[in-house]
Amino acid sequence: MTHETHIPHFYPVILAGGSGTRLWPRSRRKKPKQFLRFNSERTLLQESYARVEPLVPPDHVYVVTNAQFLDQVHEQLPRIPLSNLLGEPEGRNTAPAIGWAATLIRRHDPEGIMAVLTADHIINKVETFRRVLRAAVEVAREGRIVTLGIDPTEPATGYGYIERGRLLGTWHGFSVYELLRFTEKPDRATAEAFLRTGRFSWNSGMFIWQVERILREIRQHMPDLYEGLMRIDAAWDTPQREEVLRTVWPTLPNTSIDFGVMEHVRDAAVIPVDIGWNDVGSWEAVYKELPKDGQGNAVEGQAVLIDVQNSLVLSDGRLIALVGLTDVVVVETEDAVLICPRDRAQDVRRVVQALQDRGWEAYL
Amino acid sequence: MTHETHIPHFYPVILAGGSGTRLWPRSRRKKPKQFLRFNSERTLLQESYARVEPLVPPDHVYVVTNAQFLDQVHEQLPRIPLSNLLGEPEGRNTAPAIGWAATLIRRHDPEGIMAVLTADHIINKVETFRRVLRAAVEVAREGRIVTLGIDPTEPATGYGYIERGRLLGTWHGFSVYELLRFTEKPDRATAEAFLRTGRFSWNSGMFIWQVERILREIRQHMPDLYEGLMRIDAAWDTPQREEVLRTVWPTLPNTSIDFGVMEHVRDAAVIPVDIGWNDVGSWEAVYKELPKDGQGNAVEGQAVLIDVQNSLVLSDGRLIALVGLTDVVVVETEDAVLICPRDRAQDVRRVVQALQDRGWEAYL
Repeated sequence: MTHETHIPHFYPVILAGGSGTRLWPRSRRKKPKQFLRFNSERTLLQESYARVEPLVPPDHVYVVTNAQFLDQVHEQLPRIPLSNLLGEPEGRNTAPAIGWAATLIRRHDPEGIMAVLTADHIINKVETFRRVLRAAVEVAREGRIVTLGIDPTEPATGYGYIERGRLLGTWHGFSVYELLRFTEKPDRATAEAFLRTGRFSWNSGMFIWQVERILREIRQHMPDLYEGLMRIDAAWDTPQREEVLRTVWPTLPNTSIDFGVMEHVRDAAVIPVDIGWNDVGSWEAVYKELPKDGQGNAVEGQAVLIDVQNSLVLSDGRLIALVGLTDVVVVETEDAVLICPRDRAQDVRRVVQALQDRGWEAYL
Repeated sequence: MTHETHIPHFYPVILAGGSGTRLWPRSRRKKPKQFLRFNSERTLLQESYARVEPLVPPDHVYVVTNAQFLDQVHEQLPRIPLSNLLGEPEGRNTAPAIGWAATLIRRHDPEGIMAVLTADHIINKVETFRRVLRAAVEVAREGRIVTLGIDPTEPATGYGYIERGRLLGTWHGFSVYELLRFTEKPDRATAEAFLRTGRFSWNSGMFIWQVERILREIRQHMPDLYEGLMRIDAAWDTPQREEVLRTVWPTLPNTSIDFGVMEHVRDAAVIPVDIGWNDVGSWEAVYKELPKDGQGNAVEGQAVLIDVQNSLVLSDGRLIALVGLTDVVVVETEDAVLICPRDRAQDVRRVVQALQDRGWEAYL
């Protein structure tokens, strides 16, 4: 572990509420993506904690997850105090999760600066990531809302885009720009136009801000959410904590922070950065991430490949014998096997949908 | 069960010594093809017995298999007396197996007529098969060597071919021809030329003859084999039976009956017949055999198919989710999964070879 100085008043909040179906059959309702391993001994969740571990003491790290996953999170991240693991009674998108964490951090440290971090992405350039966090915290300390922008590598239609404006300055070697606007997932033509301007980044979903500032923004742009959060906050140190949480939470708006807040804020900044980001949002993304053999195959587990190129073959236990196919995905688990061409990886959703339609709950 | 009169002096001998690897991962060293089920509750071995069951009493049926499979054969065919299950100390091809069975049948019935039948083929037209056996036995009773010829549907290079000569007559509605010659697996051009003449059948490996006659032929054309068989026969009713068998058997010529005898005999006859024969010699052959859904898919077990056509999908237990592929084979077993295009089905051998090369014995 590198030895770094802690960042004062800094509180990373890891959002680990995902319920992804796109990595079926490995990801399941009871084991979403953040609990899976990719080319690492650590799960994505553990990786996300390891990235910030040198920057803060363990009790500065918060994890927001679905209540049903609290045990799994605690098991995987035993150093984080239980009181920092926040179990949502149900998933209500990111705005309530972030607001809730902000209120709790503020209780401990009104000067707190929080980073909203994701638990289901891969970040390969960890040192760069840590440095940009240091830079972002300094920008946020001046009162700005900061977001990390990912350099787009293709006109993807699956991500939100961030347009940058004028240069605000340089912190720790990173250029920080005024944030002009957020755009939800665009169509292909729009995405291509964005890329041509050279002014757009992908929205990483990672934000850095003062807790005071974000709570002010929530109060202004999402007053219903703010009121609910204040009711939960008021009951926090009383015997009614659990009951109020259980009662109020389902009434909170089911809204993303992007849509509810970020599209309305002023004084926001974006730091475009190459942190080796991969959202592992499909088996195709996993294939791109894993090391390949001389035939372009990424293989884990026992396999016999004959005349196979550029394929992803993951076995949890059984031998996979693959003959005469290229550009395919084969993923084997205890109870299921997925086989599809790499360019059909997004259709894994349709498999999950078919399983739901048939009521084959055991596979979901 | 149909009620038919037994054929007098008739002894079906089922050869069940196969060790096929072409249906891996279902067929294994310890569970060759004859012990597998295809579109039936019965195994191929059980089907082969069921076909002759109405024609003879159970103690007229013999099975020759490798000694290691005796228990499995007995379990699957409990009605056949144990003394009719012949366990070869090791596989020595078909000539020793057939000769051995002939000597044992002759001990009981010197007028015996035996049919050499296979345990690893599918025969869909069972009534036709039984009728042609009745015809063949009558031809054999006149002293001829009789073989069943399969109407060729393509210029296959994987089978032996039989050329017919003049018409000898009609028995039970079947035209019986003089057998001109056997040809081992030909090349493609030769096979095409054969088909153009209209005079060739595939060699089914099924023969019908008097035990006296075949033993005479063996004595003449394979004197070493004959001598060995006589040594075993002489010891059969003595305490030395097992010891002599164990000692002599490995010295017998490792030769097929086709090569050792059939290519030399005179007075042989062939009955070309359509019995709905399928050698299930590859997953492609299995695909052809199984019923298809509206998309041309043959599916057994739990599966989700999205944009999949003309494919074979067999699951023993796990869910198979297949997306966006056509003309593929997916076979799932307890410890392995095979995936290949249908037209690469013959390359399953290469998988088995690779497993041998790597010493992955558990999968063989």
